[in-house]
This record gives sequence, C-alpha cells and structure tokens, in this order.
Amino acid sequence: MRMYDIIKKKRDGFELTKAEIEFFAFGAADGNIPDYQLSAMLMAIYFKGLTKQETADLTVAMAASGDMVDLSALGTVTADKHSTGGVGDKTTLIVAPIVAACGIKVAKMSGRGLGHTGGTVDKLESIPGYKTTLSKDEFFAAAASSGMSVIGQSGNLAPADKKLYAIRDVTATVESIPLIASSIMSKKIAAGAECIVLDVKVGSGAFMKTKEQAEMLAREMIDIGTAAGRKTAAVISNMDIPLGKNVGNSLEVIEAVETLHGNGPADLKELCVELAANMLTLASKGSLDNCRGLALQALESGAAFETLKACVAAHGGNTDYIDNPELFDSAKYTLEIKADCDGYITAMDSERIGNAACMLGAGRKTKEDSIDPAAGLEILAKTGSKVCKGDILAKLYTNDEKLFDAAANEYKAAITLSDTPVEVMPIILGSMR
Amino acid sequence: MRMYDIIKKKRDGFELTKAEIEFFAFGAADGNIPDYQLSAMLMAIYFKGLTKQETADLTVAMAASGDMVDLSALGTVTADKHSTGGVGDKTTLIVAPIVAACGIKVAKMSGRGLGHTGGTVDKLESIPGYKTTLSKDEFFAAAASSGMSVIGQSGNLAPADKKLYAIRDVTATVESIPLIASSIMSKKIAAGAECIVLDVKVGSGAFMKTKEQAEMLAREMIDIGTAAGRKTAAVISNMDIPLGKNVGNSLEVIEAVETLHGNGPADLKELCVELAANMLTLASKGSLDNCRGLALQALESGAAFETLKACVAAHGGNTDYIDNPELFDSAKYTLEIKADCDGYITAMDSERIGNAACMLGAGRKTKEDSIDPAAGLEILAKTGSKVCKGDILAKLYTNDEKLFDAAANEYKAAITLSDTPVEVMPIILGSMR
Repeated sequence: MRMYDIIKKKRDGFELTKAEIEFFAFGAADGNIPDYQLSAMLMAIYFKGLTKQETADLTVAMAASGDMVDLSALGTVTADKHSTGGVGDKTTLIVAPIVAACGIKVAKMSGRGLGHTGGTVDKLESIPGYKTTLSKDEFFAAAASSGMSVIGQSGNLAPADKKLYAIRDVTATVESIPLIASSIMSKKIAAGAECIVLDVKVGSGAFMKTKEQAEMLAREMIDIGTAAGRKTAAVISNMDIPLGKNVGNSLEVIEAVETLHGNGPADLKELCVELAANMLTLASKGSLDNCRGLALQALESGAAFETLKACVAAHGGNTDYIDNPELFDSAKYTLEIKADCDGYITAMDSERIGNAACMLGAGRKTKEDSIDPAAGLEILAKTGSKVCKGDILAKLYTNDEKLFDAAANEYKAAITLSDTPVEVMPIILGSMR
Repeated sequence: MRMYDIIKKKRDGFELTKAEIEFFAFGAADGNIPDYQLSAMLMAIYFKGLTKQETADLTVAMAASGDMVDLSALGTVTADKHSTGGVGDKTTLIVAPIVAACGIKVAKMSGRGLGHTGGTVDKLESIPGYKTTLSKDEFFAAAASSGMSVIGQSGNLAPADKKLYAIRDVTATVESIPLIASSIMSKKIAAGAECIVLDVKVGSGAFMKTKEQAEMLAREMIDIGTAAGRKTAAVISNMDIPLGKNVGNSLEVIEAVETLHGNGPADLKELCVELAANMLTLASKGSLDNCRGLALQALESGAAFETLKACVAAHGGNTDYIDNPELFDSAKYTLEIKADCDGYITAMDSERIGNAACMLGAGRKTKEDSIDPAAGLEILAKTGSKVCKGDILAKLYTNDEKLFDAAANEYKAAITLSDTPVEVMPIILGSMR
C-alpha cells in the first residue's frame, strides 16, 4: 500500500477502505508517512469529505494508534463528557460531581488547552496540592473512592490525532466537520467510558457559528460513538454569551463551588443539570426527565459538593479551599469596567471576552506560557441587561497591572449597548441522541 | 505575511496577490516554508485552480527564484522549444539544426528525464565525446560558432519549480493544468529565449489524453509566455502512436541523422518542419507558410545536417559518428517481434511501447539508474499497417538478454490487431498562437 495512491483516491472522490484509513492513521502516529503527504491528504479530505464509514474507521484507528484505557476494573457504568470549548466553561467541575453522586463513575482525562483560559486540568491545579498526574492505580483508586477522578491527558492517547491535529493547525485544514468529529471522538473512545455526552457550543465564542453547523458536528460525533459501540448523546448549547460569570482558573473553581452550593448563575446550573441528566440517562438511570430530577437532587442535597471534595482529597488537594473558597489567593490588582452610557446590552462577543481574560494572564498563547491562576474577569452584566451610565459591567483581575489597558479595551469592544432591549436566547438549544 | 493565511485564502477560493504568490514561490526555493505547508497549498491549488494572473505570477516568480539566463550576448534572435514528452520524441535533434541553419540561434538546456528513454541530454551523450556540461562561455561560444548548443539543465534553474515538482510528484498534485503550465514555462522563461514553441502531445503515450486538455494546456502556456514578454506558440501533435520508428538513445540519434539526410519517417519529418516553422515565424522570418519552406530547404540542402555536425564538434563530440552512424555500438542482442496472425494494426499503446524500451535498458526508473545507450527498439509496423502472420512488427535491442521476455510481452500487449482497417489520425492536430 502506498500513501500516494490513498491521497489520489481521496482526491478523486472515492471511498477509502478500512485498511487504507488505518495505513494513513497508523503511519501518521508512527512517523512512517512524511508530513507533506499527511497535509496533502488532509487538504484532500477538507475538499472531498469523509463518508460516515470512513469517519468511523479513522476515529477508531486514531484511538487504536495509542493507549486504550480500560475502565472495566471500576466495576460500574462509566460516563464521560466533552465540550467543544467556550468562554467561562467550568461545567466538568460541576457535572462530574453530580453524575458521580448519582452512582455513575466519572474517570476522565482533560486537556490543558491553549486559549482564553487554561483547560479543566489547569483550573484544578489552582487548588493547592491537587495532582493532575496520577499513576493508573492512583487514578482508579481516586475514581473508586470518590466516584470521580480528573487527570491530565496521557502522552500516548490517540497519537495519530495529536500528529494530524498539529499538521491541520498549520495548514488551514482544521475547519472540516469529519476531521473535527474524529479528532474529538478518537480521544473520547481511547479514554474508555461507555457513555459519552458532548456539549456542542454555538455562537460568537464557539467554533461552530450556526446551530445547523453544530447539529451537523453533533450528528457526526454521535454516529461515530455509536459505530464504536459507545452510548453517545449531544447537547447543543448557546455560546453567544459567556457561560456563568467568571472567566479564569481559580475564579472558575470558586464559581463551581458556589454552583454546587446552589448559589451559581442560572445558565451554568441549567446547562450542568442537562449535561448530567444526559449522562445519567445514557447510563440507564431512567428517562431524561427522571435523570434531570436525580441531577437536581444531587446538587441540592449537597451530595455533589461532597463528591467534589472527596475527589480533591483523593488527588492530594487541600479541601479547605473547597470549603472556604475565599482562601484562594486573590489577584493583586482589580479594575472595574463601567458603562459609558445608559442602555441595554444587546450583544457580547464571547471570543473577545475570552481574549481579555487571556490578556490578563488567565490563558496561554503558546504551549510554553505559564498561567496566572488568579487572573481573569467577573462578568456583572450580560446580554439582555439594562445598565445605567457608571454601572459596573465587569471586574478584571491580574497580578500584572500593565495588562489592564489592553484587556479593558478588548472587554469594552466586546460589548454592544443599544437603546432597545433584545430577546435573550436560551442556554440549551437542543439535544440529540 | 504567513503561509497559513495564503493557504487558507486559496482554499477558500480567493485570488492571491503577486506578493503572496512570490512569498510562496521564493519560500519554496529557499526552504523557509515547510514541505507540509507547500503540499497543502498545492492540493488547495489542485482543487481551486489559479487565475491567469496568478499562474503568470507564479511562473515568473519560480523563474526568478534561480538563475535567469541572458542570451542577449548572442546578438541575434533566439528560439527554444519544449515537448510535453512522448515516446520516440527526438525532435530537438532535428528541429534545432533546422532553425539554426536558418539563422536563428538555439541555445538551450535540456533535461535528463525519467521515463521510457533518457532525455535529449542522454541521447546526445551517446555520441562519444559530446559534453553536455559546458561553462557559460563555452555554451555561448558553441551557439555562436555552430548556431546551436544543447546542454544539461543548470542546477539552479527555477529551484522553486524543482522543489514544488518534487512535492507534487509524491502528493498526487501533478495533474493540475495551471501547475503543469507554470512548471514548464518557469524553466523556459529562466532559460532566456525570446521565442518559445511548445509541442503539446495528445494520446495514449502522452500526459494529456484528449485534444481539449492539450489545447487548454497550450492556451495556458501561451498566455503565460505572452504575459512574461516572450513570443510563444504551440503545436498540438498526436502521441497515440510513437513518433518515428526508433525508441532508445543512440537509436534515436541515428534516426535523427537519417531524417536530416531526408531519409527519416514521414511523421517525424512533418512534425519537425512544423515545429521549426513555428519557431522561425515567431522569430520574424515571415509567415508560417514561408517558414515551412525555409525549414524544408534547410533540411533538403543538407544545411541542417551540417549544423548538427558543427554543434557536435563544438561540444567535443566525435563527428565521425554523425557522418557514419553505423559506428555507434550496436546492442549485443536483438529479438524480432512477429505478428501472430494476419490483420490490421488498429491501435498501439505508446506508453506500453515506451515501457518496453525502458525495460530493455533505454530509460531510468530512478534518478540513480544508468542508461544503456544502445538499448531500445525499432518499430517496423505502425497503426494502420496491414500485416501477415510472421511479419516482423518490431526489433528489440539490449545488452542484457534476460530483459527480452518481459519487454517482448509488454510490446505485444501494446499492439491491437483487427480484421478491419482503421483510419490513422494525422501527426499535427493543430497549432495555436
């Protein structure tokens, strides 16, 4: 088999066999196929697409190119979730405890993330002592004892995807639905959970700009999961507005704890309950409606909060910070952003708000950058709010005062004020099985 | 400027600026753009094409990426020709002497060629003593004294094209009309001649399988040449049947000498006169019809033959071999291919006939292979001929008897015999300015 012939076949619009797809994926992982052939292939896929069968075969091959985690030793049903990424998304810190509190184990790997803020792993690392690197035994023990464990992604999880993603990122071949879907699902499948719920974001702060695109991506991922023998569902959620109120690392842990105490923002709570309910219903805990009830109960009873605390303890983290979030180091400097005039907030550019948080030190621009755990921002007025001149729209936090100017300008540029009110879209736009 | 943005712009179907095209071409030549970005760009071009302006800009940039030969020191009009490649094509050895004998200097570089037989340079090297590597002064002196000089292509001619072609060859991005046209024309423009005639082949032995494709390629190349300030014309010629009768290196030199003596095959003579006439008319030697007359006269008077001899002498070659072609070493082994039954030859697969010659030792499979100058084949019956069982269809020549079996099978498989005769297409299918 020659990579040349496989590129030509795809270029000419023919369906590739499983063996050809495996040759491509395994060759990407083991370095036997040169980068210039991988990129030509990816551009051909960009233009010609992949059939359902090709997409499933590629996903399974990318998963099989590295370690396949076997969670069966946990002895119960396991569930995982994935978000396509948004601004202020701290759902894992709330959803995993809810689901675990309902008896479904959540033993998951999370990424570090380049972007507005760190990934879930960076957020957890803002809790003093929390170890995101555990041995396999420690990982299983943490999940067994507390019901959940969240660690950093292993180095050898879907290496074919890692290689192909790195090439896509520099060759303008990221924006392909089957490639996005197979990239996400290869890691989820390799990570081992039986039930997978996908939070597909739509809007100004998300990769998918329209609901139709998001539904297409969700359908593609559900079909892949099903083909690979996993129970898979998706929630389509609104990312025209940042999720919740805090954007930053320790700031988001604090907000998650507040939400687990029943004091979180309504949009964040609603989305977390919906995601948890979808995971529970896939895990045979009853109808979706019934599972919404279970999720709410776990939240309101404090069981989910206790689960997060047990997880932090199992990871060596200091649970005092979970009990008293005011212990988190606060940023040295704070700046309030105020409204210049009266009006209604009619739009927020989530991506720019994320940029502002990143500028304050909450995120990384390159893999080597370090993160300021206390940096970020708190959103005090969101789309739909009526504000008066001088009202505080947001508070910015940083340990480097020089960063305020640019971040404040970026935040202000993200806000549209108008004389007439606007209808706000719901947080949940749909769900799919 | 970032290559990523240029790839994305082309991927999305926008026209690139001259500066963007130059960034791509110069970056390919100097190694500043990684191969994986070049190949993604080439695949995007494969799908989205190039506008006339982009194609001209790319060609000129690829030419300018290396040495630009200045032929003005020759003090006369200069002309060049290029063939898109076919089986049995020895036209340069005949056309260049004709044109030079008519007072138009032909100082050209030729390739070695991977394929059925060597390139023009390999054919000339079968003449003992003929040097295909000359200094710039020797090259100019040879062209000034004999009227023509043919040397091997300089290492630094259009290095951007060399790099991009190497990538195209392994990423299934060769078959793109604007990329083929710009690749050919970049070398012709860098090589310096004012008048350029392109012999675009059509048929089973050619890259272009239909006349429409050939005309599209010819139009693209003429437009590029014109945009770059060169007088450019094209002849569309038939490559459903190998050209002339011999396929091999010294075998083709011998046939060229016979043709210059007026004893060559009719198709070869007709094509050479047409190509020479096109070069002469571009070089302001009168109407095309008038120039056909000049070309025929140069051929029939022996002036063209004397020019080739003078050129061989100027290159250090032994002219005894031109005077007495029987001096060329003949191959140790000969095999006759005979007709199995009576019938008409209704088709010849030129590509397979070329393969047979290559199998006998006339061509290279990889750059490192050496060529057997005496190997090849002589075609004794061509499409349209009536043959009887036992008639000799071809003679195969080689210095390695073991090669006969496979080559003979390949030759036989290339011939279609039938009960009913077939009309033979003319050698010249059209010409374009």
